[in-house]
Amino acid sequence: MPASPYWDRAFAEAEAAAARGEVPVGAVVVAPGGAIIAAAGNRTEELADASAHAELLALRAAAAALGSPRLTGCDLYVTLEPCPMCAGAISHFRLRRVYFAAYDPKGGAVEHGARLFEQPTCLHRPEAYGGFHEQAAAAQLRRFFAVRR
Amino acid sequence: MPASPYWDRAFAEAEAAAARGEVPVGAVVVAPGGAIIAAAGNRTEELADASAHAELLALRAAAAALGSPRLTGCDLYVTLEPCPMCAGAISHFRLRRVYFAAYDPKGGAVEHGARLFEQPTCLHRPEAYGGFHEQAAAAQLRRFFAVRR
Repeated sequence: MPASPYWDRAFAEAEAAAARGEVPVGAVVVAPGGAIIAAAGNRTEELADASAHAELLALRAAAAALGSPRLTGCDLYVTLEPCPMCAGAISHFRLRRVYFAAYDPKGGAVEHGARLFEQPTCLHRPEAYGGFHEQAAAAQLRRFFAVRR
Repeated sequence: MPASPYWDRAFAEAEAAAARGEVPVGAVVVAPGGAIIAAAGNRTEELADASAHAELLALRAAAAALGSPRLTGCDLYVTLEPCPMCAGAISHFRLRRVYFAAYDPKGGAVEHGARLFEQPTCLHRPEAYGGFHEQAAAAQLRRFFAVRR
């Protein structure tokens, strides 16, 4: 299982999302000094809000905590490769680095699909690293969908 | 100037955003029956939320009004070509059609940049039409930036 407290928290948020009947994705925003300033799991069904992905909720909570729309120097840990909406938000919020666990060939937009941060028009490109705890993340998603499909 | 009540409202939301010191972008969500169910202008600075683009605010308000994360059959009118974040959200919210005014070669993701709806991995592709009232929209943006740059 995940080793760092950031991954522990992100996976716990994903597990809590699954318990609510939401696709298990969890995200954590870490300040430059290392403190977790926001964490969230997916809540699209509960909030009746298709934009309520874990990343977007965590980014908005972090910005609210800091009182600024720019999260300069902050990093995001998320259990699944971000989709185009969330990758776009990560750029708008000016994150420093994005670490994600499972790759998402169908829905991801970092190393798949639109590869947003590699677009010439991308105004802010965070460093992005994928594949952390990939097996644990993939197993968590499989468990969720096995019950439902 | 814009002719339909939808464009009138979208441009009025953009103008109100400019008056608040926000980049003037306005968006309107129209239900299948033709009623405006949500309208919003950009509020990124006021809300300290880089995701508070006009489109995302209007989509979230429309979903809240309908009590559903899926806006099936609804259309979006917006004064500027949506960015990757908003184009991704438009797909997640399952909009039927997107009409936008000014093209945005630098920040747009519908007919520029990532062209999200044309990606093979895009799960829901709304019909998208750009260039409505393009000169009025471009003039509105120019007036805003002329004062500030």
